[in-house]
Amino acid sequence: MRTEWLKQRNGEECPTQIHYARNGTITAEMQYVAQREGLDAELVRSEVARGRMIIPANIHHTNLEPMAIGVASRCKINANIGNSAVTSHETEELEKLHMAVHYGADTVMDLSTGGDIPGIRKAIIANSPVPIGTVPIYEALTRVRSVPDLTADVLLEVIEEQAGQGVDYMTIHAGILIQFLPLVSGRITGIVSRGGSILGQWMAHHHRQNPLYERFDDICKIFRKHDVSFSLGDSLRPGCLADASDEAPFAELRAWEHDVQVMVEGPGHIPMDQIKLQVDKEMELCSEAPFYTLGPLVTDIAPGYDHITSAIGAAMIGWHGAAMLCYVTPKEHLGLPDKDDVRQGIIAYKIAAHAADIARHRLGARDRDDALSRARYTFDWNRQFELSLDPETARAMHVETLPEEGYKEAHFCSMCGPKFCSMNMSQAVERYNGEIASPLVTLAASSGKR
Amino acid sequence: MRTEWLKQRNGEECPTQIHYARNGTITAEMQYVAQREGLDAELVRSEVARGRMIIPANIHHTNLEPMAIGVASRCKINANIGNSAVTSHETEELEKLHMAVHYGADTVMDLSTGGDIPGIRKAIIANSPVPIGTVPIYEALTRVRSVPDLTADVLLEVIEEQAGQGVDYMTIHAGILIQFLPLVSGRITGIVSRGGSILGQWMAHHHRQNPLYERFDDICKIFRKHDVSFSLGDSLRPGCLADASDEAPFAELRAWEHDVQVMVEGPGHIPMDQIKLQVDKEMELCSEAPFYTLGPLVTDIAPGYDHITSAIGAAMIGWHGAAMLCYVTPKEHLGLPDKDDVRQGIIAYKIAAHAADIARHRLGARDRDDALSRARYTFDWNRQFELSLDPETARAMHVETLPEEGYKEAHFCSMCGPKFCSMNMSQAVERYNGEIASPLVTLAASSGKR
Repeated sequence: MRTEWLKQRNGEECPTQIHYARNGTITAEMQYVAQREGLDAELVRSEVARGRMIIPANIHHTNLEPMAIGVASRCKINANIGNSAVTSHETEELEKLHMAVHYGADTVMDLSTGGDIPGIRKAIIANSPVPIGTVPIYEALTRVRSVPDLTADVLLEVIEEQAGQGVDYMTIHAGILIQFLPLVSGRITGIVSRGGSILGQWMAHHHRQNPLYERFDDICKIFRKHDVSFSLGDSLRPGCLADASDEAPFAELRAWEHDVQVMVEGPGHIPMDQIKLQVDKEMELCSEAPFYTLGPLVTDIAPGYDHITSAIGAAMIGWHGAAMLCYVTPKEHLGLPDKDDVRQGIIAYKIAAHAADIARHRLGARDRDDALSRARYTFDWNRQFELSLDPETARAMHVETLPEEGYKEAHFCSMCGPKFCSMNMSQAVERYNGEIASPLVTLAASSGKR
Repeated sequence: MRTEWLKQRNGEECPTQIHYARNGTITAEMQYVAQREGLDAELVRSEVARGRMIIPANIHHTNLEPMAIGVASRCKINANIGNSAVTSHETEELEKLHMAVHYGADTVMDLSTGGDIPGIRKAIIANSPVPIGTVPIYEALTRVRSVPDLTADVLLEVIEEQAGQGVDYMTIHAGILIQFLPLVSGRITGIVSRGGSILGQWMAHHHRQNPLYERFDDICKIFRKHDVSFSLGDSLRPGCLADASDEAPFAELRAWEHDVQVMVEGPGHIPMDQIKLQVDKEMELCSEAPFYTLGPLVTDIAPGYDHITSAIGAAMIGWHGAAMLCYVTPKEHLGLPDKDDVRQGIIAYKIAAHAADIARHRLGARDRDDALSRARYTFDWNRQFELSLDPETARAMHVETLPEEGYKEAHFCSMCGPKFCSMNMSQAVERYNGEIASPLVTLAASSGKR
């Protein structure tokens, strides 16, 4: 789809969406996004120009179906895939990609840290209609023996290669500076951002400043050339509730000076009563650049169920204005997620993002809920399954106790049985209301509630 | 345990906890609760006297380990078990009870609607250290041919029998009155409370007032005799998001006049932005009687995952002051939960209630989180599993990719592998901080955050 669009921009010096937006041009990508979101194209353009919305769309990712991340559009979710040195290969990662896109991930990050990383990434980009994000310091680290051997040049080399491959956004931990390391001292879990901890170790070893900070302008130049968006890593995000109120710096937004798109990453592990504050602070300090949060988890005591501990925080932070929610799977803290973990994580986050859209009263957000509820009330089981986030699972659960096809039209399920179905009985009340209750409406109105 | 305590009160005319509390007596039950909660016994007594806390403890439930429901104590969760006419029997229900208690349900409701209901309930009470709740109208309905055949006498007969068996609290739908039925007209899903819909159908058929309302004083007398607590059913709770703002009456609190303990049931299906309002309204209209909510679900589009859609709402409503959260299992709307659904529901709700305790800053609420996080940071995998809500599941997920016992002390897991473990690398930063960073603390303090 984008091949034609991109051909027309061939050879332009700054082909970034924010550059076009600032010059008053509505690109085909903006047009497409506006249609998907039911928004005015001019609004999309102005939000992108303002830096409050990004359209991550590397010029080499031609099979991308453009999407937007920003508070004016629907709340998005990201699914992390990628292998580790310990487990998984290309075929499995492609299966995870398909699973992620099938269940509705809006973007996918390839966090591979083992095997043929560029090869896996190439296959993922070639097969993905959604934007692909990476954390280039991971691949950089695989090219050297150990953390102290990393250099700014290796980092930039990897960033340039990934940009040329078509990566749509990259996490760059430019905000963690050597003078912040002592802030980590009082913490229970130290630095839990992998990129942040690599840079922390590097700076502690060399007693030198963060190379991603020092070479930030060079990175901007690469991003500008390919239209890669920044995802500014929050290297000092808390790794447990106890660390949630620590001072952690908000990363810089110099990228805008280079006409490069930016979103800002957020926590992590945050008690519910501090979640709104996180969004307010980010919006204030980062000029409302789209906020991209991991969870947050609202308790630390449920390893094996952190898709749930974090979906609670994610729904709330999405309601308060986060633009994209990075999923957490049940395997978080315990092992590399497999295909089924990916599905579990995505469904939990589709729930969170959708609940956020509803609570923010985004246009039409509740339409699907209402349609499903109508199907439920009229015992149209098949329609109910179709409208649900995971039709196969909903159907399977219903079939488990009532397998015969005739039950798909039954006015009850095995939960209550025929005699105890409230929706069934409630229809008797409706008939009553329809026939004789109109005088009672007046009575109810005059007597008020009690 | 309670046998001795109860012997001393033998033959007393009003053996309810609220009666003793109002007379200034700290009962053994209050003492026990105070110890479990880390609260002052006098505070427990005054909260019970004030009606802001209940200790559901039928005088015939001798093997009960008393617990409290109220905003001053930790947030509680209830697990619904019970068969339907379509599926499940006594053995399975006892297995569900054990599962529920094992994973930490604070109370259990037996909602059986089929087979030998009194027999199942007897076995459940005899085996339960936690309070048992019921909805007596269910059993009443099984004693007649159809809804219109229900009578006030059958209802009271069932209530009296269940009270004599040792049921600790009962849902009584006294708040739905005939003049409210027209309020249901504009709704998508009508009346979804099973009890409410039975009474709705009955009233619509007979054109007569709710018998539970008309005989409320008689019910109070039974409850007073056995110390059964009311759970006042919210018959008109919304069954989908669209119905969430409907007018629904708050039930009466006449029970207090009879020295009977009361809690008030709440919704249901509520968008996130309306959750706080629900608690505020309940507290205002029901004089802060403990609020016992079902979920609420924050979206309708995820049948098969309603333990998650509702855990989000439950955590939030618990934070805002709900005293007990009734769980929802993955099977909700689709079929009768089995043992594994019970486990899934309970864990999701333990997460919600615990997150609420943390957000309300209840004393010591975060201790377990901090201990688990410390174990996580020091790679004490076994300790981490022990401290988690579901140790078996956490361990199994870890073992899945790293089965050998040696990995229980490894400084990484399969998610990141040895080279990419942030907690591992972060310890290098700590050494740096310990050795030479103290001058930098001054630097960081003077340069401020950026």
